[in-house]
Amino acid sequence: MTLEESPVLISSFCTELQLYSVDGGGGYDIVNNQVIPTPGPPPNYSSHIASLQQSWEINYQEAAIYLQEGENNDKFFTHPRNPKALAAYLFAHNHLFYMMELLTGLLLMVLSLSEAPAVPSLRLDVYVHATLELLALVMVAFELCMKLRWLGFHTFIRHKRTMVKTCVLLLQFVEAIVVLIRQTSHLRVTRALRPIFLVDCRYCGAVRRNLRQIFQSLPPFIDILLLLLFFMVIFAILGETHKHTHILYFNTLENSIVSLFVLLTTANFPDVMMPAYSRNRWSCVFFIVYLSIELYFIMNLLLAVVFDTFNGVEKMKFKSLMLHKRSAIDHAFQLLVSRQRPMGLSLKQFDGLMRFYRPRMSARDRFLTYKALNTAGAPMLSLDDFYKFYEVIGLKWKARRSGEHWFDDLPHTTFLIFKGINLLVKSKAFQYTMCKWTSIISSGFSSSRIVPWSYIVFLTIYGVEVLLKVTGMGPLAYFSSGWNLFDFFVTVFAFLGLIALAFDMEPFYFIVVLRPLQLLRLFKIKQRYRNVLDTMFELFPRMASLGLTLIIFYYSFAIVGMEFFADVVYPNCCNTSTVADSYRQINVTIGNRTVLDEGYYYLNNFDNILSSFVTLFELTVVNNWYITMEGVTSMTTHWSRLYFMTFYIVTMVVMTIIVAFILDAFVFRMNYSRKNKEPLLDPEDENGIVFEAEVSRDEALATLELYKQTCPGLSSLNSLQGVLVAMDRSGSSFLVYLGRRSRTKSDLSMKMYEEEIQEWYAEYSRENLPQSDRSLVERELEIPPPCPDPEPQPNSQGPLSIN
Amino acid sequence: MTLEESPVLISSFCTELQLYSVDGGGGYDIVNNQVIPTPGPPPNYSSHIASLQQSWEINYQEAAIYLQEGENNDKFFTHPRNPKALAAYLFAHNHLFYMMELLTGLLLMVLSLSEAPAVPSLRLDVYVHATLELLALVMVAFELCMKLRWLGFHTFIRHKRTMVKTCVLLLQFVEAIVVLIRQTSHLRVTRALRPIFLVDCRYCGAVRRNLRQIFQSLPPFIDILLLLLFFMVIFAILGETHKHTHILYFNTLENSIVSLFVLLTTANFPDVMMPAYSRNRWSCVFFIVYLSIELYFIMNLLLAVVFDTFNGVEKMKFKSLMLHKRSAIDHAFQLLVSRQRPMGLSLKQFDGLMRFYRPRMSARDRFLTYKALNTAGAPMLSLDDFYKFYEVIGLKWKARRSGEHWFDDLPHTTFLIFKGINLLVKSKAFQYTMCKWTSIISSGFSSSRIVPWSYIVFLTIYGVEVLLKVTGMGPLAYFSSGWNLFDFFVTVFAFLGLIALAFDMEPFYFIVVLRPLQLLRLFKIKQRYRNVLDTMFELFPRMASLGLTLIIFYYSFAIVGMEFFADVVYPNCCNTSTVADSYRQINVTIGNRTVLDEGYYYLNNFDNILSSFVTLFELTVVNNWYITMEGVTSMTTHWSRLYFMTFYIVTMVVMTIIVAFILDAFVFRMNYSRKNKEPLLDPEDENGIVFEAEVSRDEALATLELYKQTCPGLSSLNSLQGVLVAMDRSGSSFLVYLGRRSRTKSDLSMKMYEEEIQEWYAEYSRENLPQSDRSLVERELEIPPPCPDPEPQPNSQGPLSIN
Repeated sequence: MTLEESPVLISSFCTELQLYSVDGGGGYDIVNNQVIPTPGPPPNYSSHIASLQQSWEINYQEAAIYLQEGENNDKFFTHPRNPKALAAYLFAHNHLFYMMELLTGLLLMVLSLSEAPAVPSLRLDVYVHATLELLALVMVAFELCMKLRWLGFHTFIRHKRTMVKTCVLLLQFVEAIVVLIRQTSHLRVTRALRPIFLVDCRYCGAVRRNLRQIFQSLPPFIDILLLLLFFMVIFAILGETHKHTHILYFNTLENSIVSLFVLLTTANFPDVMMPAYSRNRWSCVFFIVYLSIELYFIMNLLLAVVFDTFNGVEKMKFKSLMLHKRSAIDHAFQLLVSRQRPMGLSLKQFDGLMRFYRPRMSARDRFLTYKALNTAGAPMLSLDDFYKFYEVIGLKWKARRSGEHWFDDLPHTTFLIFKGINLLVKSKAFQYTMCKWTSIISSGFSSSRIVPWSYIVFLTIYGVEVLLKVTGMGPLAYFSSGWNLFDFFVTVFAFLGLIALAFDMEPFYFIVVLRPLQLLRLFKIKQRYRNVLDTMFELFPRMASLGLTLIIFYYSFAIVGMEFFADVVYPNCCNTSTVADSYRQINVTIGNRTVLDEGYYYLNNFDNILSSFVTLFELTVVNNWYITMEGVTSMTTHWSRLYFMTFYIVTMVVMTIIVAFILDAFVFRMNYSRKNKEPLLDPEDENGIVFEAEVSRDEALATLELYKQTCPGLSSLNSLQGVLVAMDRSGSSFLVYLGRRSRTKSDLSMKMYEEEIQEWYAEYSRENLPQSDRSLVERELEIPPPCPDPEPQPNSQGPLSIN
Repeated sequence: MTLEESPVLISSFCTELQLYSVDGGGGYDIVNNQVIPTPGPPPNYSSHIASLQQSWEINYQEAAIYLQEGENNDKFFTHPRNPKALAAYLFAHNHLFYMMELLTGLLLMVLSLSEAPAVPSLRLDVYVHATLELLALVMVAFELCMKLRWLGFHTFIRHKRTMVKTCVLLLQFVEAIVVLIRQTSHLRVTRALRPIFLVDCRYCGAVRRNLRQIFQSLPPFIDILLLLLFFMVIFAILGETHKHTHILYFNTLENSIVSLFVLLTTANFPDVMMPAYSRNRWSCVFFIVYLSIELYFIMNLLLAVVFDTFNGVEKMKFKSLMLHKRSAIDHAFQLLVSRQRPMGLSLKQFDGLMRFYRPRMSARDRFLTYKALNTAGAPMLSLDDFYKFYEVIGLKWKARRSGEHWFDDLPHTTFLIFKGINLLVKSKAFQYTMCKWTSIISSGFSSSRIVPWSYIVFLTIYGVEVLLKVTGMGPLAYFSSGWNLFDFFVTVFAFLGLIALAFDMEPFYFIVVLRPLQLLRLFKIKQRYRNVLDTMFELFPRMASLGLTLIIFYYSFAIVGMEFFADVVYPNCCNTSTVADSYRQINVTIGNRTVLDEGYYYLNNFDNILSSFVTLFELTVVNNWYITMEGVTSMTTHWSRLYFMTFYIVTMVVMTIIVAFILDAFVFRMNYSRKNKEPLLDPEDENGIVFEAEVSRDEALATLELYKQTCPGLSSLNSLQGVLVAMDRSGSSFLVYLGRRSRTKSDLSMKMYEEEIQEWYAEYSRENLPQSDRSLVERELEIPPPCPDPEPQPNSQGPLSIN
């Protein structure tokens, strides 16, 4: 008689109807998500097992969803609550849907290239781009409908981000229709809200997090900003009362404030002082004091305050992520354990979960992941073991070979050759020689196009080095190291450069110029550069997301700028302003030659979105930004300054946060390597988290048996059989597998905050006692607490004992 | 019979000769600093005691010197070794001598105001300033001679700073004489070394520390700087190969590098891009990539690396200071304990030490300090107690009164009135009301000279507030709080402003303008502003010393600038350069008016030291600095650029360190207040370190007795008698004294690094066992280890039992 385990908790997706239909009225009755034995005919075991299996399947799916929510940091109140919601949830949570979201968002943003103040070569007719926009908006509406279906109306309304998106969508819809009817674009500042659609994408999670972090760092920032502005006003009043000595820049209070605001950015520095300085040499004290207080003290304070807040926010974010994941694991665990053994998780359940959580994972890897979690080797996986779920889930498994070389299986002579090469390329002497050569080669650099012979010789050596390394370490091992990749590309580029030279291909000369990049090899030797560059690689994803965040701000400002300032500046405009010179374009006759005297600043305009981006970048760099501001102001109104000043403050916020982020990441990394006395140089462990799993023959066989029972005929079984084949070949009764993945910031944080994490967990488990999760779910479903199982079944003996 | 204790260790100042003459040949023989009883006539006790007393006095003095060296972080190898050295040491270590050093250093620096390219109004004849210089140099030579006498020739040569100073002195001497003979200044770039004399002053210790910190932060800085320059060169080569599109700025490799160097400072930003941008819109990519890598990434990395190093250096500095102080205390303790009781220090010895260490301290305070150290209340002070020496030495002692109000002694009615006022001003409601008023008053600001009535009303209220607070809290308590001082000055300034208005005193109008400073009161309310401003107050001394360090760099650069570039730029110069416009000064006729079209940049010159300072400040602010550089370059040689670029890099170093310092201080403070959950708001404990000492009547009497014996007839006894009088008046048999001092960075650090400090100490005591100090001194004197005292004397019973 098959003893089938029943789940402790039944997924909320599983309705009465479903189970009744399977169960055929016998055995168990599902009332309010509770399996209660119904009086009546004796239970029909086969249908009972089928029903149980189905309820298990549904539990697996819900557990996988919980774990996914934990991974993506989705709040649990958006968890699907019924089968209809589940269908919508599954529809809305796959890469095809995400891609659609992303493309829609991108399309909407890209549209501004061809709308009214369009890039000349991309201009589209109004009805074309308006139709495209309507199409994209309909797509967004469709996505929102799916979300509504999945979340339910009440949750949908409570979800702020979605509500904002809905409102913006409605607005854009109306405007797009108006544009289509009037066949002309009106003042559409609301286009600046378009990035919302992009930011809401699943793939833009990092950007959302950045934005949240920026908003969280705002309150202290604003406090110090007020201090800054306060001193600015005081100095402006002081400057204005002495206007007889500061003719131009301080004649009115408004001018005075604007001059000091620009002075804060140093963009007008010696100029603003010069007229007064030429009259009275002591007037420089005013400016020196102002700059010392504002620029050198308060601005640094701003950075300090933001850095400090940022530190705290990063830690809190990490904490809440950790606890959210833990809570997700708790939820999933409750759904996966059986009524008979509520404290442990068997391989069968784990495998069922993984089939939903990572459908593409092979059976072997699922089994190995289970083994990696089960460090104690106990028959069941305890909750504490299961808490490591997110740490092991990304592992890539590989059997550990005796020698770990790719050429181990080759014939003996070949093996010896490769072994020699391997030892050679790994030796310090080899690395040192290559570096030495690089420093020699660097002395022969010139920008001329004549390639010295020594260069070709050395390049050949590099080529041989790359070949040796690839053959010696094996292509996979070689390309898995960032430094080797770098070497490879530098060498390949150098060869391409040589070829470009040899065949005289003009457009590829820039490759020749990149020759000095060879010098970067030298940076490998020095510990600090390795640290710096490793940190740089680690930072790169975050930096990219911060850059994207900045671009989103740029986009909004560019749209506003285009709506108000398109075609405002042109050559020889702004003659009434103080910066007329910079906009001048006149022919000047010097001797008998006519030279075009150009100010060029008319190029910094908002005539289309690309120009706007360049203009905004110039404003970000700050130098001479007031020329653009004054030019635009002189052609529009004084209120235009508000736009430029706001932009300055916004970029200041983002830039300060970028600085704080780099500081934080770098100092964190340094502290980490100091705290753990980790060499960070060892190329093997450079970015490796390694787990081991030992598989014995019996285990492998038992697992294979289990899989054959639960999902027979699946091709994934091959992977398990592969394990057995490998054992046969090596002739040993067990095989050790190594799971590797690269180290993430989260791993570093875990190690850094080790002690605090224990406290957080203790606090967390005090607040959420094991039962509380269950009762939470039950409270939401408004059902009475479960009564004890009336028909306890004997505990099975091992994880695989299912017969 | 008086049992006199003899010191364990005899000061090295005490020669054989001295003690022989006192001892008269009897009792003890001092051989090689060892008191050994001589065979012969029975010891004559009175002369024996006199000799012992003298050796004690000398020990006290040496111990005081050790403690002074510990406090000033003077290395022990400069410790005076014999009586001659001691005399020189004492001569060179008092405020008069320090002042002389400082004034000589200042005089030498100030001389440059009147030397060759002099400030017009301060020009002196060559023989006058050369004579003054010689005079100052003679003074320096005299100071150095004293140092030679004190250090001895061998130590003098080993002391690097002093050797550098000597060399510079010789050089300056020769040059001054040459100037005096030739009656004209030659190219005297070595004047740039003059700050060395100032930096070497005792009072400039903070500047020396800053310089050391800057040099310690240099290696990582240089590493990243190389990375920066490396990318700059690559981009320069890339830019130069495309010179056909970047006409002006990239025509040669030199121009290309200079353009990119200036671009790194953003000073030429949109301009350098404009010509290329106007030809091909995509050329902006080159500049955007360059700026993103160099300015936004590597420059921030630079800050991160410096910040990280700075953190480490600060901690190491603190560690070495702590250990140095501890070692100083160890040395002093060895000299102070008696042969009979080598583990403890009696009041008598402590008092003897303090008479040398703080000659102006009253007997009462010396006694109270001893009590504060002696927390266990044991009869002797153990070494562990004595380790707290530097913590208690700065305390200001005051008897704790019952109510702690200044008006406690007044008649009852008056007391009640003052008590009421005291309660009122300390109440939250009162503080809140005053802040509320401030925010109301702030709404009525204007820069006009008509004072609204409301302002006068509110000002009266502020005046009354100040008066109430002064009377309620007592003037001393009131002015001891920084915030109250701030209130007071703001109110007084406002009143002065009103008076200035009433009597129409034009030059004082700036006071009226400072009215908005009243608003700063609002900042008191908010915790963050309090933190920021408190940090600011704490930072101030360090900031000032950093500013001074910057000025010293300025000075050196100004001298070099004056020697090479004096009178190089003038109106309408530099016509061959690209920045000719900025130096133009021509009359332009617009319509029928003649307007002076001024470029003003000729004002940024090196014509005298004051102009040079202003020019250098402009270069520090960086904006448009290349105009000054190009102007000077066009009138001199290309090599001038080296000066400007070096200056930029040097100020970048100093500025980065200032930023790192502010960041560090602020983050440290924040972490501190977070770690200790300290409110930081409580005005009482705001910056207080408080020690308590309870004095009983018997103790006071015994101490008085002791003092009468050891130094009878001294006026300092009055202070001790005052204690007894106070006891009589209060009628209690004991009195509690409170010692207060403001909290320093060192106190904060002690609390922050609590655990590490214990480790350091453990490490330190492992390396320096208690005996090792003694044997160190003895090894230097090359004497055999002391044999045990042949005539042990009974232990005295208490610290005061001396009869």
